[in-house]
Amino acid sequence: MEKIYASLVTIGDELLIGQTIDTNSAWMAQRLNEIGIWVQRRVAVGDDRDAIIRALEEEGRQSHIILLTGGLGPTADDITKPVLCEYFGGRLVQNQEALQNVLHIFESRGLALLERNLEQAMIPDVCTPIFNKRGTAPGMWFEKDGKIYVSMPGVPNEMKGMMQDYVLPQLQQRFQTPALLHHTLLTAGLGESFVAERIKDFEAALPAHIRLAYLPSYGILKLRLTTISPDKLTAGAELKDAFGKMRSLLTDIVVADEDLPMGVILGNTLLAKKLTVGTAESCTGGEIASRITAVAGSSRYFKGSVVSYANEIKRDVLGVQQATLDRFGAVSEETVREMAEGALKVLNTNCVMAVSGIMGPDGGSDEKPVGTVWVAAGGKGRIAARRYHFRYDRSRNIDMTTVAAMNDLRKWLEL
Amino acid sequence: MEKIYASLVTIGDELLIGQTIDTNSAWMAQRLNEIGIWVQRRVAVGDDRDAIIRALEEEGRQSHIILLTGGLGPTADDITKPVLCEYFGGRLVQNQEALQNVLHIFESRGLALLERNLEQAMIPDVCTPIFNKRGTAPGMWFEKDGKIYVSMPGVPNEMKGMMQDYVLPQLQQRFQTPALLHHTLLTAGLGESFVAERIKDFEAALPAHIRLAYLPSYGILKLRLTTISPDKLTAGAELKDAFGKMRSLLTDIVVADEDLPMGVILGNTLLAKKLTVGTAESCTGGEIASRITAVAGSSRYFKGSVVSYANEIKRDVLGVQQATLDRFGAVSEETVREMAEGALKVLNTNCVMAVSGIMGPDGGSDEKPVGTVWVAAGGKGRIAARRYHFRYDRSRNIDMTTVAAMNDLRKWLEL
Repeated sequence: MEKIYASLVTIGDELLIGQTIDTNSAWMAQRLNEIGIWVQRRVAVGDDRDAIIRALEEEGRQSHIILLTGGLGPTADDITKPVLCEYFGGRLVQNQEALQNVLHIFESRGLALLERNLEQAMIPDVCTPIFNKRGTAPGMWFEKDGKIYVSMPGVPNEMKGMMQDYVLPQLQQRFQTPALLHHTLLTAGLGESFVAERIKDFEAALPAHIRLAYLPSYGILKLRLTTISPDKLTAGAELKDAFGKMRSLLTDIVVADEDLPMGVILGNTLLAKKLTVGTAESCTGGEIASRITAVAGSSRYFKGSVVSYANEIKRDVLGVQQATLDRFGAVSEETVREMAEGALKVLNTNCVMAVSGIMGPDGGSDEKPVGTVWVAAGGKGRIAARRYHFRYDRSRNIDMTTVAAMNDLRKWLEL
Repeated sequence: MEKIYASLVTIGDELLIGQTIDTNSAWMAQRLNEIGIWVQRRVAVGDDRDAIIRALEEEGRQSHIILLTGGLGPTADDITKPVLCEYFGGRLVQNQEALQNVLHIFESRGLALLERNLEQAMIPDVCTPIFNKRGTAPGMWFEKDGKIYVSMPGVPNEMKGMMQDYVLPQLQQRFQTPALLHHTLLTAGLGESFVAERIKDFEAALPAHIRLAYLPSYGILKLRLTTISPDKLTAGAELKDAFGKMRSLLTDIVVADEDLPMGVILGNTLLAKKLTVGTAESCTGGEIASRITAVAGSSRYFKGSVVSYANEIKRDVLGVQQATLDRFGAVSEETVREMAEGALKVLNTNCVMAVSGIMGPDGGSDEKPVGTVWVAAGGKGRIAARRYHFRYDRSRNIDMTTVAAMNDLRKWLEL
């Protein structure tokens, strides 16, 4: 069975000057993989006719499916539609459904309609329009020399709606795809090269169609097994078997058997144990709480947090003793333990995470350099505290501290 | 003066299956723009020999500078170095400085050294090695047919170190670049097409070498002016003049004269007014606080937060009356006002933001559908409350609410 290749093309100068980070491509790649389509290239080009046409030509030579996002807005810098119309040799005609959609959206939001908004309903006569239930710009499905080209808005939820309602089902119908499966093991506590050393015989014995990839990510090491096999029936079982073998070599450092965010992993553990959680955060400034509450349904186990950035809040809200702050400082085992105990009382939860550290770039000392962090995790009468030292910039130090605290509580819950 | 073009090539299957979001490219593009180099393409390819070589050929045809990241780790899936060695016709030899660096890193971290770690010090004899002060994998600088190819690790802080210490200074010496300047105006409160309508004469009158781009982003509309001019002396003044003209047409909706994160914009306002701030967050779960504390030095104005996800916390920690929650519900003007008043007392700050809403996917009702949010912002005796309705998915609803709350407080501070 032929392997089906896709290219993702994002259009917009903002992607080239670093003003916007492309999060669409990751979501699109995941959905395409689920239906057995392999994304072999991702390309970002500017709002420039020649660059867009060159990308259409190059990707059209290499992939069966070319998915484009961006440049469909109502303003002068949005040129994707006319360029596609030119490339595929069509002319712009008014689309009734798209027109009704534009009118409906402006009416329902009580906005005055402008000429440029009506132009959103003009579509090349050589494409199949794709309805946009969340915005005014319709998507466009073109076919040329047996290749499929789909243009969608760059607005994430508009693109996602079109992909789910139309593009993915259509592609699934059109292509006979092989099974394309990933299974990722999350580990923590052992470096990439040491893990590789421990499982090198396993890795060497893998069949050619199963690949192992190592992805270090904020204190977590992801080990991803990928198989591409024409036999959908055996592929899953075979991957499961390989995954089991790998896992058995790493039981002491396993965090999860799936590539889930720490917020979900921790949430599932708390749900299973029917426990509630809260946080007392200094240096992470609410990041741990926001990771937990990013998960739908987190209200079943998360009650709240005290972000005690100022020592005054540590003392007055969490009940940390002034003497403790004076004697040991805000970044100390004694302080995070009192923060945790205070949070257990104030938030009335079964368990908590408390963190205090120096994220940088300033605030470090010889004794406590930037990156020094104390984490306390646990419940009433049993709190584990641990010191970390991260060597990164402020934002990465905050991420590392957040993951470390969540993983510490996860380990505490497993005991 | 010739325009200098760069291509950014990221290598790694994780970028193609959507397991990793590429944040390196945005940072690299910003730094290159600062020295007058235009990034015309960003390409992501997998850990695959043919795909990497094809990218080297294609980008080498189109750009003067090709910057590659990723695939330099110590594990079997990291193939960038051998592929580059083959492409540029060299052989791998041991580099003394790199070897000393590997030994030093493992020694200082008290880790046992493995053969595969020593291999990190092997470098093609046809490249100039780039020292990696933050990791074991050295960078590599190749030149072929007058084009420059630089390979760096995908680990963000390692790549950044090499760019700042070596790559950017070298490129600046090598190329005569034009002035490449951006100036972005942040606005809020008027839709993209209405803003475009209001400034269409201004836009039409812009000289050809100044481009205007519209970037809607979470309730903020960014208007970016970009100029590329050989005359470094006049370019800045000319852009400043155009920016002033544009701004004068939009004074009523201006948020900031620079493309800064809301956390920085709000922080600067608080610093200028010498005021302290805190938050009382329900549906954002600490996201507002984490945005504020992402800014270095935020401890000068941020004291803390109460994340009151459970009504019990709203009542017991923030002092919201049970009667208010019973009668009006957690998502109501009355509740967010009492949350704000409570936070002002508990956190003892000059001003606060309080938010409560339904982020979805569940929890909506006919009366209060998903996306319904109440925001209160203000200080003692003067609190402004406002209702929003966002129509996105959970994560985007949280982002929209966060930006809306910070912008509401910013406006309150301007009064």
